[in-house]
Amino acid sequence: MREAFQDQLDGIFLDLGAMCAQVEVAVREATSALMTGDSRTAEAVISADAGIDAMRERIEESAFSLLSLQQPVAGDLRVIVSALRMVGELERMGDLSVHVAKVARMRVPYVAVPEEVRPTLQAMASTAEDMVRRVKAVIGSRDVEAAAALNRDDDEMDRLRRISFAQLLSDDWTYGVEPAVDVALLGRYYERIADHAVSIANRVVYVVTGEVPVKS
Amino acid sequence: MREAFQDQLDGIFLDLGAMCAQVEVAVREATSALMTGDSRTAEAVISADAGIDAMRERIEESAFSLLSLQQPVAGDLRVIVSALRMVGELERMGDLSVHVAKVARMRVPYVAVPEEVRPTLQAMASTAEDMVRRVKAVIGSRDVEAAAALNRDDDEMDRLRRISFAQLLSDDWTYGVEPAVDVALLGRYYERIADHAVSIANRVVYVVTGEVPVKS
Repeated sequence: MREAFQDQLDGIFLDLGAMCAQVEVAVREATSALMTGDSRTAEAVISADAGIDAMRERIEESAFSLLSLQQPVAGDLRVIVSALRMVGELERMGDLSVHVAKVARMRVPYVAVPEEVRPTLQAMASTAEDMVRRVKAVIGSRDVEAAAALNRDDDEMDRLRRISFAQLLSDDWTYGVEPAVDVALLGRYYERIADHAVSIANRVVYVVTGEVPVKS
Repeated sequence: MREAFQDQLDGIFLDLGAMCAQVEVAVREATSALMTGDSRTAEAVISADAGIDAMRERIEESAFSLLSLQQPVAGDLRVIVSALRMVGELERMGDLSVHVAKVARMRVPYVAVPEEVRPTLQAMASTAEDMVRRVKAVIGSRDVEAAAALNRDDDEMDRLRRISFAQLLSDDWTYGVEPAVDVALLGRYYERIADHAVSIANRVVYVVTGEVPVKS
């Protein structure tokens, strides 16, 4: 019984890792569409989201079946509920990538992000993408140290977001309102992707240690 | 056993309703702070969020205890997992109210929202608040019709968001970048509050009927 439970649980974590890999592609491609103004890439991200949603349903079904058939208690129960929450967060990260792709698509053939603020936004996108890649590894390895390191990257994201606001609110900003609004919302989307990555990492820590990590 | 389960489940739904009432206050007060530039109200919303978070923890513990002690299967299991997700969404709605309050606080003693766009943003805030009030009622009554009606309000929110964008991107917009960015982000926060209200309503439909509603 116990062994069957562990096997099924491992299967769920494998699927979560695979789902996170799809999210990683979505974040990367959405950023590529954004920075190049390429509508085909944007469309690909938008239509690939159905695959991420389907993956969510499949993992949820596995988790419910595990809950129903194995009737876990205490710790095991919380692990599966954590997995269900992780799946919800991964789906949201996919949705946020779609939001980025839609901003890109709306401005095609132009690039939504003015040149001056492009390095900052690219840094936010790269930070978010890197966090998604690392949380994917954390889901696979259940490495508590690596999970804790993600908390620190979140500070980098906050710092970049402040820089982007300073840029678009400075007197030197000559691009007008529309790109400023785009940049502010895009920054929000990347920030939320990063938040979810941290949250998933914390859930992995909880799954391994039984303790909810407190941000240092 | 079955009766004990139902009693505990009813208790969880009562708590969810009470938590939603706290979120309703947060949304209303955050909007009040925003529209009046009153820092005390903004601070009150920000500090009250700890109460919403504490409520979340309490409800989660009840749900886990119900899962562990009663070992529900199939439908009952999904109902409790739905409750756990509702609690997560209510917490997020509280966080979003804090975001609104923080924008208000940042601009004190001024009002972050320029007069021209205030009616539109007030309409978004009122729609969000009304949806929170109605989803609170839905949690209490488990009225499937009332839950379905919330889906339609979401369209109103989309419409208002489009109007606000048209306003801040029009040639008549004379307020510059900062208020435009504020309005775009505030609109996003209210839109997300509304999204969560719809999602909770859909979870109630699922709890009652066993079917996930499809948006008409």
